[in-house]
Amino acid sequence: MLEELKKRVYEANMDLPKYNLVKFTWGNVSEIDREKGLFVIKPSGVDYDKLTPDDMVVVDLEGNVVEGRYKPSSDTPTHVELYKAFSKIGGIVHTHSTYATSFAQAGRNIPCYGTTHADSIYGDIPCSRNLTEEEINEAYEKNTGKVIIETFEKLDYMATPTILCKNHGSFSWGENAKKAVYNAVVLEEVAKMAILTEMINKEVKEAPKCIQDKHYNRKHGKNAYYGNDVK
Amino acid sequence: MLEELKKRVYEANMDLPKYNLVKFTWGNVSEIDREKGLFVIKPSGVDYDKLTPDDMVVVDLEGNVVEGRYKPSSDTPTHVELYKAFSKIGGIVHTHSTYATSFAQAGRNIPCYGTTHADSIYGDIPCSRNLTEEEINEAYEKNTGKVIIETFEKLDYMATPTILCKNHGSFSWGENAKKAVYNAVVLEEVAKMAILTEMINKEVKEAPKCIQDKHYNRKHGKNAYYGNDVK
Amino acid sequence: MLEELKKRVYEANMDLPKYNLVKFTWGNVSEIDREKGLFVIKPSGVDYDKLTPDDMVVVDLEGNVVEGRYKPSSDTPTHVELYKAFSKIGGIVHTHSTYATSFAQAGRNIPCYGTTHADSIYGDIPCSRNLTEEEINEAYEKNTGKVIIETFEKLDYMATPTILCKNHGSFSWGENAKKAVYNAVVLEEVAKMAILTEMINKEVKEAPKCIQDKHYNRKHGKNAYYGNDVK
Amino acid sequence: MLEELKKRVYEANMDLPKYNLVKFTWGNVSEIDREKGLFVIKPSGVDYDKLTPDDMVVVDLEGNVVEGRYKPSSDTPTHVELYKAFSKIGGIVHTHSTYATSFAQAGRNIPCYGTTHADSIYGDIPCSRNLTEEEINEAYEKNTGKVIIETFEKLDYMATPTILCKNHGSFSWGENAKKAVYNAVVLEEVAKMAILTEMINKEVKEAPKCIQDKHYNRKHGKNAYYGNDVK
Repeated sequence: MLEELKKRVYEANMDLPKYNLVKFTWGNVSEIDREKGLFVIKPSGVDYDKLTPDDMVVVDLEGNVVEGRYKPSSDTPTHVELYKAFSKIGGIVHTHSTYATSFAQAGRNIPCYGTTHADSIYGDIPCSRNLTEEEINEAYEKNTGKVIIETFEKLDYMATPTILCKNHGSFSWGENAKKAVYNAVVLEEVAKMAILTEMINKEVKEAPKCIQDKHYNRKHGKNAYYGNDVK
Repeated sequence: MLEELKKRVYEANMDLPKYNLVKFTWGNVSEIDREKGLFVIKPSGVDYDKLTPDDMVVVDLEGNVVEGRYKPSSDTPTHVELYKAFSKIGGIVHTHSTYATSFAQAGRNIPCYGTTHADSIYGDIPCSRNLTEEEINEAYEKNTGKVIIETFEKLDYMATPTILCKNHGSFSWGENAKKAVYNAVVLEEVAKMAILTEMINKEVKEAPKCIQDKHYNRKHGKNAYYGNDVK
Repeated sequence: MLEELKKRVYEANMDLPKYNLVKFTWGNVSEIDREKGLFVIKPSGVDYDKLTPDDMVVVDLEGNVVEGRYKPSSDTPTHVELYKAFSKIGGIVHTHSTYATSFAQAGRNIPCYGTTHADSIYGDIPCSRNLTEEEINEAYEKNTGKVIIETFEKLDYMATPTILCKNHGSFSWGENAKKAVYNAVVLEEVAKMAILTEMINKEVKEAPKCIQDKHYNRKHGKNAYYGNDVK
Repeated sequence: MLEELKKRVYEANMDLPKYNLVKFTWGNVSEIDREKGLFVIKPSGVDYDKLTPDDMVVVDLEGNVVEGRYKPSSDTPTHVELYKAFSKIGGIVHTHSTYATSFAQAGRNIPCYGTTHADSIYGDIPCSRNLTEEEINEAYEKNTGKVIIETFEKLDYMATPTILCKNHGSFSWGENAKKAVYNAVVLEEVAKMAILTEMINKEVKEAPKCIQDKHYNRKHGKNAYYGNDVK
C-alpha cells in the first residue's frame, strides 16, 4: 500500500546523509496521506545503506503500525502529535545535525541575521523548553511533540517550519517530506552562519525587519516572484 | 542565439556547487556580450542538477527577457545595474557562501590579513549599508545594485572585484563569468581565514601595505610575472 | 588463522578514513577472540590504501606476535592492557580525530550537553592525567593503558566506552571492532558539538540528568526500545 | 631529462588538492637531484587538472630554467635559497592551506599541544618576521627564502620541517617531495587542532616536554620503533 508515498519517504530519508545532516541512523523523515489518515516513516535503527522503499513503515494517527516488517522510528509518537496539531503540514524530519543541535544544546533561539534565513523561515527559530521529569517518564516521545506544539502557541508553524528541542536536536516540517528536508538543510546552514556571525561581531543585531519581510514575502507572500514555473 | 555564451554561463553556474559556494538554487552567474548589449543569466529557482545550457536566459540592459523559456534569476535587476555602472566587467556572480555571508550578516568589511587576499583583491572587501525601507519597497533588486555602486564611489571596482551586501550575501565580478566565480571562491576562502585569524590573535592588524602592494602587483600590475603563457 | 576476525578488523580499520577519523596511518583498530585469548590488530605505519586483511597481525595477551609479516601497531601494549582489565570488551580503536584530540590537548572532560552524547555514552567523557616522566620512560604504551584503567576506577567502562588521553588522542571500545569504531565516531561528533555549544552559550550547563538517563536507557537499558530486530 | 623525478614531483603536486591543501593553483612542490644540482618544480599558474609530468620545469641552483616549456613557479627563488642553505632536504612544498595560513596571518608560532604535532615536528612551528619594504622591492621571493633561513638560525630544520611566513602562507620540506607534502598535511591538521585547543581551554599550556620528546623519538630517534619494514 502507499507505494508512491513510500518511495518519496525513502528518497527524503536518503537525502539526510546526502546533505550531511545525519550520521549512522540518527534521523528520520515521514510524509502523510491526509485523506487516508496514514503516514509513512523510516524504520528504527536501520542503516541508510541497507534501506529500501519497502522497509518504510505505515502508521496511523494513533501511532499504530498498519504495515511494515520493521518497528517504526522511536520518534514516531512525536510525528503523530505534530501531524494532529499542525493540520497543514505534509512532511516531518528529525535530525541531530551538528550546528542546529549545538544551538539546541546551548538552549538558544537562532536569531534572523540575514536573508538566507528570512528566505525560508520567518523570524527566530525557537528553542523549546526541556521536558519535565514527569513528562519524560510518562511518554517521552509523545510529550516531545506536546512541548513543540506548546512552543508554537503564538507562532505560525507554516512561516517558521522548524524548531530546536532543548538538549536534543531539531524537527522541521513542510508541505511534504522533500520540503521538510529542504527546511532542515536551511536550518543547519543558518545555524552555522549564526554562530559565525556572532564570532565576527559580538555586538551584532538581527537583520532589519523590513529586509526580513521583503525576503520572506518574495518567496512565500501573495505576490511571490521567486522561482519558476515554465512561462 | 549566443550559444557559446550560454555554454560558458552554464558552466560557470555549475562551478558554484562544485566549489561549495551554494546550496540548492541559492546563487546565480551571468556574463555579458558588450557588443550586443545582452547578457545571459541562470533561470530563477531551477535545480542545478536539472540545469542545461539551453535553460539560460538572455536579457537586455533594461532587464527585458530577449530569449528563454524560464524567468531569469530574481536578482537580474542587480546584474543590470552593475553591468551599466561598471563598464569594464564581463561577468557577475551572486552567492550566499557561508563565511562571506557571515561577514555580511555581521556588517563588517573583511580586512586584508595576508597575501591570499592581496593576490586577488586590493584592500578591504567592503560591506555595503542596508537598503532603506523605501528603497526595498520601491525596487529591491535594482536598488541593491544602486547601493553596491554607491559603496564603490571611491573604490576601484576592478581592483576590488567583490562586495558584501549587509545582512544578505555577496556579489563578485570579473572580466568574464569564470573569473567572477574565481573571485567568489577567493572571497569565501579569505573570509574563512579572516575569522580564524582574529580568533588566533585578537589584536591582529592588517598585513603591511608594502606586502599587499607587492602581491597584488605581481599578479595584476604592469609588470606582472605570475602565471604562464607558453614561452 | 582467524581469517574471519582478520577480515572484520581490516574492515573496521578501513572505516577510520571513511568516517574521516584519521589521516595517513594515524589510527588502529583491534578485535579479540576471547576464547583463544588472541587479538588481531593493524600493522604499524602501513598506508590504508595498501592494507589487506592478510596484513593484520595476530597478538596474544602478553603482546607477543603469534602470526603476521608486519610489526603490529606501536600502540599494541595499550590494547593488551585494556583487554586484560576490561573483560567485557571485544574491540578497541585509537584515533587522533580532530575535535576529540583538541579536547585531549586542552585537558578537559567532554560534558554531556545533549542526547546525541547520552544516546551512546553515559555521563562525561573523561580525560586522563598525563603519564609521569618515569611512566613514559619505563613502558610508554603499556602505561598509557594503565593510566586509562586508573581513570576508570570509579566509572563503568561499558557505559562510558571512550576516553581522552591527555595531550594525545582517544581510545574507544565496544563489544567488537565495529562497535568500537561506532563509538569513536560518536566521540568525534560529540566533541565538535560540545565546543560549538560552549561558543553559542558561554554559561551553558550539562543536559538535565533525567534526559541523559532517558536517552541512555532507551537504547541500552533493560527495556531498551530503540532499533530493530525483524519483528 | 629527469623523467622519474618529474613524475614524482607531478604526483606530489597532485597530492595538494587531494589533501585539500590548495585551491586553484595556489601551491607548488619541488624535489632536487642533489648529484646533478638540479630540481624539478611545478610551472606557474597552470591548473591542476591540466597538469602533466611533462609540464614540470627543471631548474638549477641559480634559478635558471634548464628545461621546460613553462615558466617555473613564481616562488622558485625561495626554493633555490632553501635548497642551498638546508643541505639535507630533498623536497619543498608551499601552500596557503587554511588553518596554517590563518596562524601566519595572526603572526603566531604554533605551540606543541600534543602528540599529533610531536610525532612529526619537534617543538613550536615558527612564524617568520615580515620582510622589510627594502627586502620586498629588492628580490621578494629570494628574500622570503633568506628570512626563512634566518628564522632557523637556532633551530634544527630537519626536526622542525615547516615554517609559517608572516601574512603569507607556509613552506614545508623533507627528504623528498612526498615527505614534504606529508609534513604540510601535518602542519595543517596541527594548526586546526591548536586553535580548537585554545578555544576549548583558554589557559592551555604546551604538552609536557617529556611527552614531546617521547613521541618525536619513537618515530625519528636513534631507536625509533614506529612503522614497518617487512620483518
